[in-house]
Amino acid sequence: MQKKLLFSREEYLNRLGKVKERMDHEGIEVLLVIDPANMNYLTGYDGWSFYVHQGVIVDLREENPLWFGREQDANGARQTCWLPDDCIVGYPDYYVQSRYTHTMCFVADLLEKRGLSAKRLGLEMDGYWFNARMYLTLQQELPEATLLDGTNLVNWVKTVKSTTEIGYMREAAVICEKVMRTAIETIAPGVWEKDAAAEVCRAQIAGTETYGGSSPAIFPIMPSGLRTAAAHLTFEPDRLYRSGDVVMLELAGARHRYNMPLSRTLYLGDPPEDLRKTADGVVGGLQQTLEFIGPGVTAEAVEERWRQAIAHTGVVKPSRVGYSFGLNYVPDWGEHTVSLRPGDKTILEPGMTLHFMPGIWLDTYGFECSEPILVTESGCELFVDFERRLFVK
Amino acid sequence: MQKKLLFSREEYLNRLGKVKERMDHEGIEVLLVIDPANMNYLTGYDGWSFYVHQGVIVDLREENPLWFGREQDANGARQTCWLPDDCIVGYPDYYVQSRYTHTMCFVADLLEKRGLSAKRLGLEMDGYWFNARMYLTLQQELPEATLLDGTNLVNWVKTVKSTTEIGYMREAAVICEKVMRTAIETIAPGVWEKDAAAEVCRAQIAGTETYGGSSPAIFPIMPSGLRTAAAHLTFEPDRLYRSGDVVMLELAGARHRYNMPLSRTLYLGDPPEDLRKTADGVVGGLQQTLEFIGPGVTAEAVEERWRQAIAHTGVVKPSRVGYSFGLNYVPDWGEHTVSLRPGDKTILEPGMTLHFMPGIWLDTYGFECSEPILVTESGCELFVDFERRLFVK
Repeated sequence: MQKKLLFSREEYLNRLGKVKERMDHEGIEVLLVIDPANMNYLTGYDGWSFYVHQGVIVDLREENPLWFGREQDANGARQTCWLPDDCIVGYPDYYVQSRYTHTMCFVADLLEKRGLSAKRLGLEMDGYWFNARMYLTLQQELPEATLLDGTNLVNWVKTVKSTTEIGYMREAAVICEKVMRTAIETIAPGVWEKDAAAEVCRAQIAGTETYGGSSPAIFPIMPSGLRTAAAHLTFEPDRLYRSGDVVMLELAGARHRYNMPLSRTLYLGDPPEDLRKTADGVVGGLQQTLEFIGPGVTAEAVEERWRQAIAHTGVVKPSRVGYSFGLNYVPDWGEHTVSLRPGDKTILEPGMTLHFMPGIWLDTYGFECSEPILVTESGCELFVDFERRLFVK
Repeated sequence: MQKKLLFSREEYLNRLGKVKERMDHEGIEVLLVIDPANMNYLTGYDGWSFYVHQGVIVDLREENPLWFGREQDANGARQTCWLPDDCIVGYPDYYVQSRYTHTMCFVADLLEKRGLSAKRLGLEMDGYWFNARMYLTLQQELPEATLLDGTNLVNWVKTVKSTTEIGYMREAAVICEKVMRTAIETIAPGVWEKDAAAEVCRAQIAGTETYGGSSPAIFPIMPSGLRTAAAHLTFEPDRLYRSGDVVMLELAGARHRYNMPLSRTLYLGDPPEDLRKTADGVVGGLQQTLEFIGPGVTAEAVEERWRQAIAHTGVVKPSRVGYSFGLNYVPDWGEHTVSLRPGDKTILEPGMTLHFMPGIWLDTYGFECSEPILVTESGCELFVDFERRLFVK
């Protein structure tokens, strides 16, 4: 069968080489990768099957990793992974959500058969998809193994993007601009919130005239009115926009699961003075901070620069102001590596992609204006070309 | 502030009473609910914030449960929960994805302050959102607590729906019909797969003329051609449908996070004889099985009836043929309780909602035709009115 891979075999092997380097430095002989974005990164696998247990086993001594998943998903793995078919293992359906056995029993057997049951085994301990029962089952079934923490090990490798990845992210950025424009054009007093959200969802997938989007890792966050005082509420399905609404738009385009997030804020009517002031403060501070970002700067220094830039405005932002983003499935497009906040000593380097996201949530409304950026050799580059201001209609 | 709740306070208290009954029977004094659908079920909380740790603490001795989450999400909880404000606790942002502390340290402190640190504590051990690090942190911070398995405890309560819930599910069913019709009408040779998927996504949110949908827990699964041989692949963003394509449609409508899934299969052109035969076998078996489903029947008996019904057709379906579904966020609309498969002794009762889903994946194509149903006092009732056959265009 002819496979259509999104990256060359060399690129996958290069990623794997970097993962193995980190594994070796941390004394991990075998890494169990459960996060679906990390599975995709290492093998190309792309299916909505992560609601059952599945994963990739990286063995320092083997060239190819091993994909395991539900038998009915093995065909999907054979179609989307760069791996030869003998590196794809399906498990029987009786393991699925069983009260009598556990998929990790199957995985322990698999490790046993490959002579890996007494190895130093790295696990994504603090990831979404590696739960407590999975851990305890492995611990019980592999008494001779040493269980180590491999949380975010692949994520750190993912944090610096390749040229091909950046190409897909630029394609996602074009979709992202269309999505945001769709939202701002559609929302108006008297329009159903559901209908605006529906147009946003359509734009995310329809993409451009020559290529389509993929489903972003976070559904459209687009609260209005009082709901903008909260960080993660979305549209109200049975409400019409009305004059006097603030509408916060935290939207994304995605291409081949590479997300491109963007936030803007819209006001319907004549915005109150304090909202205008907050907007001016945030937009000004954002501009100054962007000029500061570049290779060699630490993540915490970016946050500090931001804090200085807005010190005179009275705006206070007690949470982190940004994070690394890229290839991801639900529930988050953030990579859980770099955070722009006090204490994060990460030194920025070319190829990192950050969402600078200074969202402000006050008691009765919020304001968001963000930029997704690429760290370059000399500074940083915007992915998206979209006016930074409080939009007024 | 005027709150718009989707259910009466009485209904929430009734749910909580049933959860406490189960807790008591299992000897669990305090239950830590992390699954966002279970949080929603018990409190009404509805935000896309489950990418950070959050939860609900149910204490047998207290009338009200306690919501905890990120400080910036506490406003969202105050807006969407039926709880009084003093039952909503926000934690500082430095706990988020920190390498130096963990949100479960905050939770342990919270339990300590409430005198719960030496209790018998139930945990959703095998859920998506309770990971290994969360477990180990609680174990370390609460040395006097007894950690017990509370996996799916709330899910089992959720499995039997109330009249109000069934009402929302009927609304979701109307959306679901529109979504499936949109897909079948849009897909044709020469149409971009992305454009058909975009229309599906729009229909999911636009809902009806009088109410909107919410984002289903699974993105549209709509593979074509050879990709239908795999269970969970979706559309290809850069491909046009062509004559000779099988297109599998596993789509949903959702209303207030109550999902209504449905599968149908479409063939573009003149279907090959073996596909027609498979379709006839599945549709016939489905009809016979539906007539058999009702209160008092076990889950495994339903599967057995199905197997008998298709025995003469040569169709083999080695995985489970259905499951309980309802209120859910990503990544799954299934409730992880009732499975229609050998060994599941659950006795069906009125108010249970099951997705009877006999998907067949052969080596070069697949066929799906499903029905979401409600178990009634006398049998079962279809949620959706949609012709059961192989659609041909």
